[in-house]
Amino acid sequence: MMPHDLQQTISLLSHTPATLNALLRNQPEIWTLRDEGPGTWSAFDVVGHLIHCEQADWITRATTILQFGEDQAFEPLNRQTRAGQGQSLDHLLDEFTHLRKRNLDELRELNLQPSDLNRRGRHPAFGPVTLSQLLAAWAVHDLTHLHQIARTMAHQYRDAVGPWSAYLGVLQCNGHSAPP
Amino acid sequence: MMPHDLQQTISLLSHTPATLNALLRNQPEIWTLRDEGPGTWSAFDVVGHLIHCEQADWITRATTILQFGEDQAFEPLNRQTRAGQGQSLDHLLDEFTHLRKRNLDELRELNLQPSDLNRRGRHPAFGPVTLSQLLAAWAVHDLTHLHQIARTMAHQYRDAVGPWSAYLGVLQCNGHSAPP
Repeated sequence: MMPHDLQQTISLLSHTPATLNALLRNQPEIWTLRDEGPGTWSAFDVVGHLIHCEQADWITRATTILQFGEDQAFEPLNRQTRAGQGQSLDHLLDEFTHLRKRNLDELRELNLQPSDLNRRGRHPAFGPVTLSQLLAAWAVHDLTHLHQIARTMAHQYRDAVGPWSAYLGVLQCNGHSAPP
Repeated sequence: MMPHDLQQTISLLSHTPATLNALLRNQPEIWTLRDEGPGTWSAFDVVGHLIHCEQADWITRATTILQFGEDQAFEPLNRQTRAGQGQSLDHLLDEFTHLRKRNLDELRELNLQPSDLNRRGRHPAFGPVTLSQLLAAWAVHDLTHLHQIARTMAHQYRDAVGPWSAYLGVLQCNGHSAPP
């Protein structure tokens, strides 16, 4: 498989903090603190999860691939962990912005060449993966959670829109949750 | 049904232009000009559609309700119409930002009272609707298209993420398209 274009990935990753800031900062709590029901996340929770992933997931795993290849599986992550409980959303958005910038600086310093993207590591659940797949997944993970935040916000007006719900696709989305 | 809180709706609507600017401006074309296949829209197309709706849909229909109530059905809209074909994405983002600000200024000038939100109009497809439902649908329409843009961007890396696709819910989303 062709490795993807790393500059496209970095561009997407670098736009996410400003996107979440523009969408969520200075909004009433209905748009940031409400979830979709028991066991689901608010936008606040999602930002906390993204912080945890910046701390423990993507860059950590990239360096594991470069150092150990397939010899050492990635540390399993608890995908339910969220940072920042009890803090303000503004604080979380600042923290995510800071961590993302630091991690992208670290990614650029790795000075990856196209051949590096084919290097392999080992995922604890699904086995051999490439560095290319890991970095592409980092970007699509941002989009999965942007998609989730839009759906969670829309859910708050599920009744308020009345018959328009038939035309508003986001209200038909069931979340496509990943297996636990 | 309780009318919704108009200030929450205005807050959401006022955040959308900056959100789309942060997400889409200065991105490589893979994130802005590619769609999900024949008959689907790129992010560029979605912004063109949002411009058309600012020009012809929400505020126009709100004033129709206030002037004519249920006596005059809304003009049917072509939901496939997109403004800005042949122009740059930056131009479209500027145009959307300008139109949204103008329409929110107009909404505030209507100085709607809680009782106004219960006023009724007539939708050409689903009959009686309230002003409250129309304004709530305007907000959720933004979220439907943010949800769509995230999905369309993610689609470009459908193959690149390899086995991670099982964990990335946005890749399972089929779009929940509204009936044509």
